[in-house]
Amino acid sequence: MTENMDFPFPVPADRLRRQIAFVLEADKLKGVLRQSYLTNGERHENSGEHSWHTALLAMILAEYSNRSIDVCKVIRMMLIHDLVEIDAGDTFIYDTAGNASKAVRERAAAERVFGLLPDDQRDAVRQLWEEFELRQTSEAKFAQAMDRLMPILHNYFTEGRSWREHNVTQEQALAKNRKIADGAGELWDLAQALIVASLQ
Amino acid sequence: MTENMDFPFPVPADRLRRQIAFVLEADKLKGVLRQSYLTNGERHENSGEHSWHTALLAMILAEYSNRSIDVCKVIRMMLIHDLVEIDAGDTFIYDTAGNASKAVRERAAAERVFGLLPDDQRDAVRQLWEEFELRQTSEAKFAQAMDRLMPILHNYFTEGRSWREHNVTQEQALAKNRKIADGAGELWDLAQALIVASLQ
Repeated sequence: MTENMDFPFPVPADRLRRQIAFVLEADKLKGVLRQSYLTNGERHENSGEHSWHTALLAMILAEYSNRSIDVCKVIRMMLIHDLVEIDAGDTFIYDTAGNASKAVRERAAAERVFGLLPDDQRDAVRQLWEEFELRQTSEAKFAQAMDRLMPILHNYFTEGRSWREHNVTQEQALAKNRKIADGAGELWDLAQALIVASLQ
Repeated sequence: MTENMDFPFPVPADRLRRQIAFVLEADKLKGVLRQSYLTNGERHENSGEHSWHTALLAMILAEYSNRSIDVCKVIRMMLIHDLVEIDAGDTFIYDTAGNASKAVRERAAAERVFGLLPDDQRDAVRQLWEEFELRQTSEAKFAQAMDRLMPILHNYFTEGRSWREHNVTQEQALAKNRKIADGAGELWDLAQALIVASLQ
């Protein structure tokens, strides 16, 4: 349906038609499963609900950012940061092979998925996603910290389940998540303690 | 665990401990099922992913608000608007009996769930939720429009499935969703067309 944006419903203007096509395409993110489990351990988390949870986390923990940030921009980043997974799938951060091809796969996905939007919004959302990926701005650094802290919390409350299933060691988890310190030093102290407690 | 906020992990400050307790409690919203189906029809949608999807919808469709709005405030409203469902459950808008007791159940839930936060954040989030519920401000009216438009889109793409399962008529759907016009007149035109097409 959204491939050619020629779907059979009475939307008056082309602009609105494209906006609706994008939001409907986003529905597919609810079917992309992550390695993390819900804290009750019942099932894997999907990337749609993860996007909500990390946006909420950013809203609540904004005061721990190392630098002054536009919280609204961070929240918008969290809302769109995983949309490329609709085509590219979720790549586990400890999957070395998957991460080698991740950039190429996600870039193609960004082209297609964000390309559903009207041109001005396509460019704005694409730019926001690139900013997140580049990890240069204060907002991107804090957003990345939120994206990494969340699965650490989930792992802690499931006794490191997704880590253990993939033989992730304490050293690997500490190394992969060190970037949290770039966004929020105090939360990195917490994250380290949780990693050590989950994988001992 | 979060009932007494006495959970066994090394969080340094009471403030951060409460913030984490709130965000972990929020995880439960991913287990609250709505009547709506995903657009692929595979399963019911949960309120966590719905919160994300409506926040994204608000971000993309903000230009259709009848009045000038603080989009960031609307997005934050969408992120927290359903948290009371952790205790109160999702009440289908066409369920008359359920809606009679909804306000009382949700008020008690707001007390407990938002009460997990540090006092200043508890008050801010509570106020944001009350504003959403009261539907008086421009932001609340637009946020309510987003919350109602989303299931109409889902219903349209599943041939009115959740409506048909509950014998919701075209007249009922039109009456219950008329409030979309208070937030976004142009989107109400679209919503009406979709309702009529879904339930004919």
